Amino acid sequence: MVSLALIHYPVYNKGGDVIASAVSNLDLHDIARAAKTYGIEKVYVVTPLLDQQSLVKRIVGHWTAGAGGRYNPDRKKALELIRLAGCLDEVITALESRGQGRPIVVATDARPQAGGIGFSDCYQMLKSGRPVLMLFGTAWGLAHPVIRAADYILEPIFGPTDYNHLPVRSAVAIVLDRFFGH
Amino acid sequence: MVSLALIHYPVYNKGGDVIASAVSNLDLHDIARAAKTYGIEKVYVVTPLLDQQSLVKRIVGHWTAGAGGRYNPDRKKALELIRLAGCLDEVITALESRGQGRPIVVATDARPQAGGIGFSDCYQMLKSGRPVLMLFGTAWGLAHPVIRAADYILEPIFGPTDYNHLPVRSAVAIVLDRFFGH
Repeated sequence: MVSLALIHYPVYNKGGDVIASAVSNLDLHDIARAAKTYGIEKVYVVTPLLDQQSLVKRIVGHWTAGAGGRYNPDRKKALELIRLAGCLDEVITALESRGQGRPIVVATDARPQAGGIGFSDCYQMLKSGRPVLMLFGTAWGLAHPVIRAADYILEPIFGPTDYNHLPVRSAVAIVLDRFFGH
Repeated sequence: MVSLALIHYPVYNKGGDVIASAVSNLDLHDIARAAKTYGIEKVYVVTPLLDQQSLVKRIVGHWTAGAGGRYNPDRKKALELIRLAGCLDEVITALESRGQGRPIVVATDARPQAGGIGFSDCYQMLKSGRPVLMLFGTAWGLAHPVIRAADYILEPIFGPTDYNHLPVRSAVAIVLDRFFGH
């Protein structure tokens, strides 16, 4: 019972200002395909910008109800996981409304955060069966208030180098594989 | 001493014909960033098409010698790993010319292949210190002659579902994390 939220606001830009980032077509496809691979329930695309919401609807509609789905049914199965939300609270309310309680909210960030939990501790929690919502930030990452408001902060992904600049698309794929791959 | 080759020919299209696929800007960025994160030596972009080779040069040039690198030095560090090659033999020759012998060639594929090796066996080989070249196919995957000519075929990535349609960008990130993440 794990869902993802891809957050476009509030996130940081390169200069450290809080912005609403643009939706990326490739993010939607790649994250939906990883989510479908690893048994994720829903992928919430969170943006308050109406033009960006329209874009998400157009992309998802093309692949679920339109010509894209007939051309590529596998893509349709992945994009069908996507839901639109104007803000994070809306996502939490939607998950709560299913009667299984408030989801545990796990933030992710490329920077190590005080009080972050490791992948194995997080995995134990995921196995508990309670609904879990994992947050992934676009642009230069989730704004601190979102991270601080989460129930848990997952430790960053590291390889054997100090290079720490993965695209959010890749971060989602890696995190899901660490939890659910075999 | 691990390098990657992103193969654009020979690969399959949706209908099972052998084609030369188009280079994707996002593939170059995402795969270079994952490679830099996990300590990969070089990323060879393999295409025989001259217009596609020009495109690769233009993209890589923008981020390594041009304005992109000044705007985003982290991106520059990743894109600097990219090398261009017209065919797989050219990559193998380039790696051989460094005097450490012919690289061990490991093909990857989303479909299970007879004689495929598991991730843990492959990891043991990677640790041996011999140069290794891992092949990733674009479009609908590496043509069979390329797979059959490889020294090893890595088992596919699976999650807990039977959905098996990850983008090559995500597959590279996951494979590298399984070997070199911590």
